[in-house]
Amino acid sequence: MNMNDVCSLSLRHVGFGLKVDCMDEVKTIFEPRSVILVGSSMVQEKVGMASPQLFRSVTHNMKRFFRGKTFVLDIDGKNPNKGLNNLHEMPELAVIMLPPNQSIVQAEKCAKMGAKALVMITGGYKNAQRQQLLKLKEKYGVRILGPNTIMGVINVANGLNTTFEKDIMPVKGNIAVISQSGGVGACLLDWACFYRIGISKFAFVGDKIDIDDVDLLQYFGQDKNTKVICLYMEGVKNGRRLIEEARKIVKNKPILVLKGGVTHESAQRARSHTASIAGSDAVFDAAFKKAGIIRVGDIEELMNAAIVLSKQPPMRGDNVAVVSNVGGPAILTGDAVDRIGLKLATLSEKVKKKIESSYPGVDAANPVDVIADARADRYEKVLELVMDDKNVDGVLVINMLKSTFFEPKDAMVIQKVASKHPDKPIVDVPAGGEDFELVHRVMRNTNIPLYNLPEKAVKALKILRAYALVADRH
Amino acid sequence: MNMNDVCSLSLRHVGFGLKVDCMDEVKTIFEPRSVILVGSSMVQEKVGMASPQLFRSVTHNMKRFFRGKTFVLDIDGKNPNKGLNNLHEMPELAVIMLPPNQSIVQAEKCAKMGAKALVMITGGYKNAQRQQLLKLKEKYGVRILGPNTIMGVINVANGLNTTFEKDIMPVKGNIAVISQSGGVGACLLDWACFYRIGISKFAFVGDKIDIDDVDLLQYFGQDKNTKVICLYMEGVKNGRRLIEEARKIVKNKPILVLKGGVTHESAQRARSHTASIAGSDAVFDAAFKKAGIIRVGDIEELMNAAIVLSKQPPMRGDNVAVVSNVGGPAILTGDAVDRIGLKLATLSEKVKKKIESSYPGVDAANPVDVIADARADRYEKVLELVMDDKNVDGVLVINMLKSTFFEPKDAMVIQKVASKHPDKPIVDVPAGGEDFELVHRVMRNTNIPLYNLPEKAVKALKILRAYALVADRH
Repeated sequence: MNMNDVCSLSLRHVGFGLKVDCMDEVKTIFEPRSVILVGSSMVQEKVGMASPQLFRSVTHNMKRFFRGKTFVLDIDGKNPNKGLNNLHEMPELAVIMLPPNQSIVQAEKCAKMGAKALVMITGGYKNAQRQQLLKLKEKYGVRILGPNTIMGVINVANGLNTTFEKDIMPVKGNIAVISQSGGVGACLLDWACFYRIGISKFAFVGDKIDIDDVDLLQYFGQDKNTKVICLYMEGVKNGRRLIEEARKIVKNKPILVLKGGVTHESAQRARSHTASIAGSDAVFDAAFKKAGIIRVGDIEELMNAAIVLSKQPPMRGDNVAVVSNVGGPAILTGDAVDRIGLKLATLSEKVKKKIESSYPGVDAANPVDVIADARADRYEKVLELVMDDKNVDGVLVINMLKSTFFEPKDAMVIQKVASKHPDKPIVDVPAGGEDFELVHRVMRNTNIPLYNLPEKAVKALKILRAYALVADRH
Repeated sequence: MNMNDVCSLSLRHVGFGLKVDCMDEVKTIFEPRSVILVGSSMVQEKVGMASPQLFRSVTHNMKRFFRGKTFVLDIDGKNPNKGLNNLHEMPELAVIMLPPNQSIVQAEKCAKMGAKALVMITGGYKNAQRQQLLKLKEKYGVRILGPNTIMGVINVANGLNTTFEKDIMPVKGNIAVISQSGGVGACLLDWACFYRIGISKFAFVGDKIDIDDVDLLQYFGQDKNTKVICLYMEGVKNGRRLIEEARKIVKNKPILVLKGGVTHESAQRARSHTASIAGSDAVFDAAFKKAGIIRVGDIEELMNAAIVLSKQPPMRGDNVAVVSNVGGPAILTGDAVDRIGLKLATLSEKVKKKIESSYPGVDAANPVDVIADARADRYEKVLELVMDDKNVDGVLVINMLKSTFFEPKDAMVIQKVASKHPDKPIVDVPAGGEDFELVHRVMRNTNIPLYNLPEKAVKALKILRAYALVADRH
């Protein structure tokens, strides 16, 4: 019997209406058997998102992707109440997308009829309206995500998709994303879809009057489809609880955080944006460290860090070997390794001699310059030797196409070598624009993370090192 | 009579063979009337680039793109000497791509017959061989780029293209690039082509036994097709000369530098890579500051900085206004503005009131959140007001598509507003993956620089501020 079973059991005994510290209804947010979409084909906010267009788009996505049952309630359509009354059973999850006052009315109807959870898409709530909404939880035991989630939730596994971006769906993977901001979340979603980054679930938390980051962390911590958790946050309601829960989760799954509202002025803005309190940045920084949460600097870093953690093992030491078919980018890599607090590994003499005797002209001092005419065979032999070297904790490969004889398909040897060394991380840099694109096309379904510049790959290795230190401290 | 005319005149009088500190032969590197390509259809280096493949590819590119005369000398082809002897007139520029010893022999033949400049593509030279090559300059007055330039030169204006990447050619623009590394240069070239960044000229300097970064800076300083100069360097022969020349140039044209070989170990590698001496990083940093050269951290920053300098005016103060249709990314922008040492502008009360009275619900505190349903008309009106505000020195626009009602074509109003304010910079952030791509397709031929993340756009504004401080100090 696992944790979820215990929760379900106790929940059945105590009934709804009591505050139960359990994840059953949070689970309903992502894994409902049935969903009802509540909107209007008439109401158009003057400034705001509630609109027939949004309602149509969410409905379109749910009908296209969701593999459970979807019901639609158009409150300004024909016989709207008949629609709700005709239901044999109230759907588990209600997704509501109306202006604040109408949303609250509909939310109460759904809760009263037995909906276990609500996703409140639209925003513009005043504090009193938020309180009104929260009362539904006390009264009916319903759990609430939002309001102002903007895009709601995505579960790639069952096709649940309450976003209003028509036909958008990330590829299946094991990265979960929690975003306090609709815009940042949408940007992360767009990024993930465009670069085909494998996602398990997405949650836009909005004003988080009920379900918050920590509830979602708890859920993702136990979600077997999730291996890495990404968090964009502007503020937190209960810092101690965040730290406690995160400490448990990071033993098994890394948590990455991007924090917005660092500066005073931005913090002011964050307050008005999602009604949360953005605290002093130093306090957050200390809390993240204590919790074992790894902090990143921007959206690209967040996605790049998530990719490397989802594909490669932690790095158990600081020593990085660089194998490159070009000189300058290898030098820039060395600079970046030093700047970030890692080290260029000193290769063992045996390995150096083997490389240099096999390929006259190749300088096997790290970075190893395999020279611009290197193809798959030379890379394979050199990478085998370097990955086997006990002085090396992780490997960064550079394989440019322009100015070299390397072909995109040659990069597959990296995956081949990596599969023999599952405990040592390796990342690849087909540096540039088109070069990255061409190698990405060949390699995107492998476990080798790809970066378009050396500095980004070095940051990725640093993330693997940081997570090793977090995971090993327990 | 301009500087070039003076040089040409004096050169005619003194004749070849004397060291004349003048740019005439450097000019020949980029603007030859005729070119001879010297290679072999037989010689294949075991480790190294000299090969029939490289020879064929350079020949292909020159024949496809170059609008002057191209001659080809295959030293292992039929009647090779007859080929050279049959020439009515020796071409001005010889491009040589053979192993070191053969390259030196052919270089001397060309110099003797009157070539004004040599581009030495291939590498692997020992010091003694470099000295041998340099003697040709003393003996014949010929100027030498390289050896080990790998890709040689590109001049987009006349189609000169000695690279061996078949069919690669950047779009015409006003950014010149000087790279000491073939790999970094190739990466920059690939980046420029992929993202359609407008380029005037490219030079790969290699071992720079004769023509060096400073010669090229001087030439680009006077080149009317060049507005911004990018420099990748690992070492410098004459630091004082670099500073003196740069100080003159930066009054009119910004110079950007990416320096490789910053750390001790990387510096060691740089030494073996292009036989230059990588000095202490702090010394370089001070020299760049003194010279008014703006330093950047990586290849992407270099390209992004060049784009913004080529498209937008310098920023005359620190105050940045942010206009965004999403909340979270605007908050991240505020953080980045603060972190980088710029300021969020305090909008004038008049402007704030005008915005808020026109659009109820819009909060006109900077960052101005125009809300997710904003289209071209709302952006235009708000941007007009913000660009007009005397408290604002530069504007950063965020227009995401995902989670909003914004359409790619709406972004054209940014260009419309910008054209009325030619002295105040504006940059645009269609944040994300596909969102960036879609807006880029509409906007890439405008003067509005586009960035896929707020942090990159903030860095770009910081570059415009840095250049204003450089240009204004004279």
